[in-house]
Amino acid sequence: MDKNDVLELFEKVAKGEIKPDEAVEKLKYKPFDELGFAMPDHHRGLRKGIGEVIYGAGKTPEQISEIAKNLSENGQKHILITRMSKDAYMYIKDKIDIEYYENAKIGIAGGIKKADTDGVILVITAGTSDIPIAEEAAMTAEFMGNNVKRLYDVGVAGIHRLFAHYKDIMDSDVIIAIAGMEGALASVVGGIAQCPVIAVPTSVGYGASFGGISALLSMLNSCASGVSVVNIDNGFGAAYMASMINHMGGK
Amino acid sequence: MDKNDVLELFEKVAKGEIKPDEAVEKLKYKPFDELGFAMPDHHRGLRKGIGEVIYGAGKTPEQISEIAKNLSENGQKHILITRMSKDAYMYIKDKIDIEYYENAKIGIAGGIKKADTDGVILVITAGTSDIPIAEEAAMTAEFMGNNVKRLYDVGVAGIHRLFAHYKDIMDSDVIIAIAGMEGALASVVGGIAQCPVIAVPTSVGYGASFGGISALLSMLNSCASGVSVVNIDNGFGAAYMASMINHMGGK
Amino acid sequence: MDKNDVLELFEKVAKGEIKPDEAVEKLKYKPFDELGFAMPDHHRGLRKGIGEVIYGAGKTPEQISEIAKNLSENGQKHILITRMSKDAYMYIKDKIDIEYYENAKIGIAGGIKKADTDGVILVITAGTSDIPIAEEAAMTAEFMGNNVKRLYDVGVAGIHRLFAHYKDIMDSDVIIAIAGMEGALASVVGGIAQCPVIAVPTSVGYGASFGGISALLSMLNSCASGVSVVNIDNGFGAAYMASMINHMGGK
Amino acid sequence: MDKNDVLELFEKVAKGEIKPDEAVEKLKYKPFDELGFAMPDHHRGLRKGIGEVIYGAGKTPEQISEIAKNLSENGQKHILITRMSKDAYMYIKDKIDIEYYENAKIGIAGGIKKADTDGVILVITAGTSDIPIAEEAAMTAEFMGNNVKRLYDVGVAGIHRLFAHYKDIMDSDVIIAIAGMEGALASVVGGIAQCPVIAVPTSVGYGASFGGISALLSMLNSCASGVSVVNIDNGFGAAYMASMINHMGGK
Amino acid sequence: MDKNDVLELFEKVAKGEIKPDEAVEKLKYKPFDELGFAMPDHHRGLRKGIGEVIYGAGKTPEQISEIAKNLSENGQKHILITRMSKDAYMYIKDKIDIEYYENAKIGIAGGIKKADTDGVILVITAGTSDIPIAEEAAMTAEFMGNNVKRLYDVGVAGIHRLFAHYKDIMDSDVIIAIAGMEGALASVVGGIAQCPVIAVPTSVGYGASFGGISALLSMLNSCASGVSVVNIDNGFGAAYMASMINHMGGK
Amino acid sequence: MDKNDVLELFEKVAKGEIKPDEAVEKLKYKPFDELGFAMPDHHRGLRKGIGEVIYGAGKTPEQISEIAKNLSENGQKHILITRMSKDAYMYIKDKIDIEYYENAKIGIAGGIKKADTDGVILVITAGTSDIPIAEEAAMTAEFMGNNVKRLYDVGVAGIHRLFAHYKDIMDSDVIIAIAGMEGALASVVGGIAQCPVIAVPTSVGYGASFGGISALLSMLNSCASGVSVVNIDNGFGAAYMASMINHMGGK
Amino acid sequence: MDKNDVLELFEKVAKGEIKPDEAVEKLKYKPFDELGFAMPDHHRGLRKGIGEVIYGAGKTPEQISEIAKNLSENGQKHILITRMSKDAYMYIKDKIDIEYYENAKIGIAGGIKKADTDGVILVITAGTSDIPIAEEAAMTAEFMGNNVKRLYDVGVAGIHRLFAHYKDIMDSDVIIAIAGMEGALASVVGGIAQCPVIAVPTSVGYGASFGGISALLSMLNSCASGVSVVNIDNGFGAAYMASMINHMGGK
Amino acid sequence: MDKNDVLELFEKVAKGEIKPDEAVEKLKYKPFDELGFAMPDHHRGLRKGIGEVIYGAGKTPEQISEIAKNLSENGQKHILITRMSKDAYMYIKDKIDIEYYENAKIGIAGGIKKADTDGVILVITAGTSDIPIAEEAAMTAEFMGNNVKRLYDVGVAGIHRLFAHYKDIMDSDVIIAIAGMEGALASVVGGIAQCPVIAVPTSVGYGASFGGISALLSMLNSCASGVSVVNIDNGFGAAYMASMINHMGGK
Repeated sequence: MDKNDVLELFEKVAKGEIKPDEAVEKLKYKPFDELGFAMPDHHRGLRKGIGEVIYGAGKTPEQISEIAKNLSENGQKHILITRMSKDAYMYIKDKIDIEYYENAKIGIAGGIKKADTDGVILVITAGTSDIPIAEEAAMTAEFMGNNVKRLYDVGVAGIHRLFAHYKDIMDSDVIIAIAGMEGALASVVGGIAQCPVIAVPTSVGYGASFGGISALLSMLNSCASGVSVVNIDNGFGAAYMASMINHMGGK
Repeated sequence: MDKNDVLELFEKVAKGEIKPDEAVEKLKYKPFDELGFAMPDHHRGLRKGIGEVIYGAGKTPEQISEIAKNLSENGQKHILITRMSKDAYMYIKDKIDIEYYENAKIGIAGGIKKADTDGVILVITAGTSDIPIAEEAAMTAEFMGNNVKRLYDVGVAGIHRLFAHYKDIMDSDVIIAIAGMEGALASVVGGIAQCPVIAVPTSVGYGASFGGISALLSMLNSCASGVSVVNIDNGFGAAYMASMINHMGGK
Repeated sequence: MDKNDVLELFEKVAKGEIKPDEAVEKLKYKPFDELGFAMPDHHRGLRKGIGEVIYGAGKTPEQISEIAKNLSENGQKHILITRMSKDAYMYIKDKIDIEYYENAKIGIAGGIKKADTDGVILVITAGTSDIPIAEEAAMTAEFMGNNVKRLYDVGVAGIHRLFAHYKDIMDSDVIIAIAGMEGALASVVGGIAQCPVIAVPTSVGYGASFGGISALLSMLNSCASGVSVVNIDNGFGAAYMASMINHMGGK
Repeated sequence: MDKNDVLELFEKVAKGEIKPDEAVEKLKYKPFDELGFAMPDHHRGLRKGIGEVIYGAGKTPEQISEIAKNLSENGQKHILITRMSKDAYMYIKDKIDIEYYENAKIGIAGGIKKADTDGVILVITAGTSDIPIAEEAAMTAEFMGNNVKRLYDVGVAGIHRLFAHYKDIMDSDVIIAIAGMEGALASVVGGIAQCPVIAVPTSVGYGASFGGISALLSMLNSCASGVSVVNIDNGFGAAYMASMINHMGGK
Repeated sequence: MDKNDVLELFEKVAKGEIKPDEAVEKLKYKPFDELGFAMPDHHRGLRKGIGEVIYGAGKTPEQISEIAKNLSENGQKHILITRMSKDAYMYIKDKIDIEYYENAKIGIAGGIKKADTDGVILVITAGTSDIPIAEEAAMTAEFMGNNVKRLYDVGVAGIHRLFAHYKDIMDSDVIIAIAGMEGALASVVGGIAQCPVIAVPTSVGYGASFGGISALLSMLNSCASGVSVVNIDNGFGAAYMASMINHMGGK
Repeated sequence: MDKNDVLELFEKVAKGEIKPDEAVEKLKYKPFDELGFAMPDHHRGLRKGIGEVIYGAGKTPEQISEIAKNLSENGQKHILITRMSKDAYMYIKDKIDIEYYENAKIGIAGGIKKADTDGVILVITAGTSDIPIAEEAAMTAEFMGNNVKRLYDVGVAGIHRLFAHYKDIMDSDVIIAIAGMEGALASVVGGIAQCPVIAVPTSVGYGASFGGISALLSMLNSCASGVSVVNIDNGFGAAYMASMINHMGGK
Repeated sequence: MDKNDVLELFEKVAKGEIKPDEAVEKLKYKPFDELGFAMPDHHRGLRKGIGEVIYGAGKTPEQISEIAKNLSENGQKHILITRMSKDAYMYIKDKIDIEYYENAKIGIAGGIKKADTDGVILVITAGTSDIPIAEEAAMTAEFMGNNVKRLYDVGVAGIHRLFAHYKDIMDSDVIIAIAGMEGALASVVGGIAQCPVIAVPTSVGYGASFGGISALLSMLNSCASGVSVVNIDNGFGAAYMASMINHMGGK
Repeated sequence: MDKNDVLELFEKVAKGEIKPDEAVEKLKYKPFDELGFAMPDHHRGLRKGIGEVIYGAGKTPEQISEIAKNLSENGQKHILITRMSKDAYMYIKDKIDIEYYENAKIGIAGGIKKADTDGVILVITAGTSDIPIAEEAAMTAEFMGNNVKRLYDVGVAGIHRLFAHYKDIMDSDVIIAIAGMEGALASVVGGIAQCPVIAVPTSVGYGASFGGISALLSMLNSCASGVSVVNIDNGFGAAYMASMINHMGGK
């Protein structure tokens, strides 16, 4: 309900089409459903440019299923479910028409739209073990209408592998740099790229990597400019941010 | 030295204008000066869209002064010096023509260019004590050719102050949200804004704020999408990222 | 044994009804039983306004069962068992007449008393995953004689969902605000509520949420006044505190 | 602007006394002033039962002075300034009629109102070094209309000192327990008191007390019920919470 | 090999009973066996007043069994095995004559000697969940020849339970105070006891107890004198220290 | 007031020498003075075997002076003041007859008693920088009636320096091992000594020594038995504990 | 492609054997294969003196197998796989000729070469539980062509066991010192050895050992010179470093 | 005193040249002086290949001066004093002939010997602010007889500056890589170098660099092989280790 809606409301009151106390009630309208355990948000599509996303972790398969159905019944065509376990998928697939990407732990109902921008998001990882997070990012970015390019296992220990793809880095519009351990990839990519870099620390590593803290601190302290950071293992968040940036041009 | 330069080099060799071993030497050309204590980078303006910035902290006034002169002599017209103490400014002002913004601890030689994009960056703070970091961000963004709007002291403890500026939030192209203590501002702004939000935790607070860690963790864990984070008190980094994003549209 | 009991004891000595050395012995009376592995406290009902509560975590089903029986035999009518696993319940249900609330991991023997105060405790959560902790709080508060209102999944990422229930917040006498991740809910609720807010950080989240530390720090650093904090996931403790406050009016 | 104000607005529109677009403008009214560096909140007295408090730390004497004057000109009679350095007081005292309590680092303009409730808040400290925080709490509580009783240096190392004041603990309506080092005071007081206990960890101590973390963790993990915690050294926050609770009875 | 052994060696050389180079070899004698994976120490009984103890955690049942046999064959009559899993016991019991105390996770071969000192070690816990650590301490102390008194579940939340055993505290020669959560027991006991107190933090608790860190910090910061601390859950270490102290008197 | 005092009280009541309500009042007697900012404890000499000690840190010179005078007037002959700055000493020396040990930051009124036990406490440090803490420990131990032997700068980096004093280690009754940096001294000494070792981590070091945390963790994790730990830099606490142990023999 | 290759390329261009634009393409040659999920590096053998090592953790058996085959097909004769689970081995052994060392979790294809240097690497552990990490180090060092000597369970709690092997320490060229808990072994060995010491903290321990942090900090703060540290449990990394050093002499 | 000395001793005893008890005394000889506050080690030159180094931090100018004189009088020709403040230098320069390098905070008596090995140690820093630590390393390495090459301000944010010195990296025998902030330099250098790399994290940085922790973790988690780490800011330690390695070849 934006300024125009309110103006319209006043005008109806002025014309006598609606009574003052009825109008007050209308001002309290709720753009979401109450399921008891969750309040799906039907207007997010408008406000943020993407419909409600279901964060699957910590939700029962039943809850995921019910929220998905509720969104679907309220007109959301494309639904993205992140952090969905295979068990949850097995439960849901009979109730909703859904595609499951096991590596990314992502489920998508209603398919993926064609990219609606020319920009390219490059998803780049330091190692092989970072790939699940990278796929969460890549799938999310594609779901949100972006062209995505993947470049995996090009960490700085063998920096020539990274430089062999120098052109990919130069041709991207946004880069998502994903690394665990010491997370140096973000600084090196940030130092050569000419576009914004979203860094994702991963919990890959052992010993003093402390579940991603080492990579996180490394990325936050990056001496390169044009790098910002999201939470450990948060591939979805990085893709969301990257997609927002990648759609800036078309406004 | 890009692909074209290399091609040209080969062509000269092919034509006999240059000898093979001279060409090999040329491939090792260094786009920076060696001052002994620093290597100013004269090509950064090309690579990253902004000239070399001097990070003043941990450098002596003499070093800052020499680097600035070197950049100037190599043709950089606008020079930004961050984290410059008043003492450093007093030393430098007789040697270089420079304007000093004490609150932001920023010095600028060569003035600020007019904004070269229509987009607006909104710099928003939770409290009064966050203003020095906000000014570092705002001045940097202006230096990099952006329109900047400031909105200070609108933290969530009196959330009506924030909502009174709802329209400013809606009309921005990028938002820099700056907060210490519990850093909730980033989540709330991220929840309503339709554009990318760069969150800057500040070291403002006491007790269990631990020099900005509380705000940093809060921002990294933001439940809102479209929020990424830079280092504690890193107003410059946020502005650099925001400017990159804000210039996406004009490509 | 309060001052009056001691006075009475002296008077009996003065009257010769009891001998001095017998009186000394009486001063050492123990208001609890010794089970070897536990010392149930039969006077807590008097001292703190609620009978002994059994904290189920870290106790074997046998121990829980024996403590509960001991309390029951010593006249405690209503018994609350928190953090009781389903296994413990399966073991105990044949020995004691008990109702089990699986979501809250709470068992109650002797039923729940009717509310003995008009005040209302509002239990509010940021997300769906916080509900188990919220139910621990809500059930405990009801057990202690309070009217409880539940409001779940209204986190600040979609702050309009929270404001749609503005009236509930305004009409409450105490609020228990439960959130994981960045815990911003406590600050926002604390900023608009006119009653005390007890904040409960939960271990919900991933990455840099560090098992609830992020939310805990966020809540401790809340810039809103009238907010105090209990331990991570401590729904019981929040409800106990809230009930104490909610019964202040009737003194 | 509550529901009644909105209803009245609609009625004026219905009667033609005000035009629809004027009404829309009125809905955006701001209950606060914009000073550029701060937005004093003139309605907080209504919303939270106490006027705007000025948190002095991190503000210049000039800023404190201007905010205080602005509040005063907007009709706030009693103004509380916390964390005010002696320097700030020396600057302000010629501009505003103010009393300064150096130990508590508190300044009060307009004097302290008489207590408006019969309840008693007991402020209790473990050691002598905790007194400045205790005074911040005690002065704040008195400023907010409470009867305050002080009990200092009764830490658990000589627990008979605490028990000698057993009656004070029993007769209180709210207790603020303040301790550094291991913070055991909160658990012991919480174990015997029959009223809510607000625990304040202080940064007093050395070595592994880590600026109050030891006491903070200790208090959060208190095995006693009816204890909640505020930030390290946050005497003001504890008093604010305690005052809210202490005024519950009179509703 | 002490000073006298060396003197004797020289004297034999002086008398020609042994050749110089043979003597040099003897100086390299090893008071332990080499099993490849472990070097059991046969002289520890002499050096430290107790034979080699086998720390079972991180060793395979086979390794434990072989070390125990080696010690036994080298004349150690009483063998203590700590942190021995039930599985390890099941494997070993057919190979060595051993008694297993499941609660304490302790195995003892050769039985427990009668106490060889009059002093009493009091083992005291805050809660029921601390008992396994307490039993590790109590069994170890008994194994080392001490009279042990147990006093469990007397934490400070119901401090009258502790004071009912005031005399036990006063009559002890050393106290081992075991507590998780906030660990306040150590300070309270340390404040009233007249003998040394060894504090053992346990990993009991949840949320911000951080696996015993809260209790550990609390105990290290104890405001009571005469308290020292061992590692989290280190019942064995506390008992070893306590036994050393308890045997001081008899020298 | 022990059991006999209570019995005597009852007998007086039985004989009519005292009235019951007077007796109740007597039960509340306070064995300490109330100075407002501190409650000196006149009975600690009885309860703990040493009079009240004044912890000077965080107290003003005036407060230290007043507490000392109060103790003196209540019959305490020997007074120990720890963590006393030179400034405090300069203020106090005109008011009280006191000796000041600057290196140890200790002041002593009434002199040091002759040792009242034959046992020897060995105070041993890893480096030269640990000496101030060592002197705090040594002076305190002497004040409490112990023979003290000092052995400084014998850290494990040149372990032959330690072994050259092997006999000192063997001849001690209690050892206080003081070390910063990696704190390995405690493990090595604990591995060879036959008496209890109290380990004191110091804040000496740089980089990842984190103000003593490294040494603290090292000592807590000591693989040697018979080692317990006190707080970082807590020389006083170590000496108090050591003195208690050293006096065990004479009971 | 080193300087000579580039020179040769230019010469071919000069002679007309190759066209300029073809030459530019050649400059982009990639010395590695792209498997999609990994980029095996075929030139590492040249660059770093050892072929590509497969870090098995976080890779599926299928991935390990495919990378191994790819390396083998590209001419790498000896392949080392670290952190390989037994499951992975069972899967791979039918596809590749491989030997598995379960204790070290290491698989080796193509066997171990004879030592190609006279130097000796001594691998030394504090306890029995450190052996798996020690074996990872020892096997890696042997794989890389070193003579390795093992010395296990010689921690500082029984320091005579260590000194009995004094000669081994003196005769080594590099030492790898492996310890958990308090990690004092590194300092003691570092204090007596005359060669470089690589310290490996292990996650062995409990309580405040915090998964190796205690040992890590201890080793970083070692007061002995000539000690450097690798990551917790990083036996491979230590061996790699040690081998590099051990091969210095032969250059 | 090595094996030969002992053999010689025995032979003298056998020949009657020395008496048995005199020989025992000789075995206890102390290769160091006792100054009371320090025990200078005169044999370290033999044991570790470099004389005793004086660590100046935490020592008074008087102590430094006395230790230096003691070493000098015992025949040590070259003395290195690290972490020496300018004040200490001003005090000492009149007493001892010493050269002071202010940037490195190093004092050297007796001058620097010529390099006694052909190997080259490359000292490389990420930024300008890391130079003081780099100079500590470089001066120490030169003092210990190494050829040193300096390469400063070549951090990964402008990675072409690093690659322009590719040949320096390839030609070194040992590299000391020094960086603060995110410490990525160590990984990048480690990935391309063919020699051992000693990484030194520095406390340079702000915000979440936490005084060097970020760089330390980054370096410990380096994905490159052949990298080991010393303590934060420990330039001396890195140089000592590097020198040991650099002298391996000449054995």
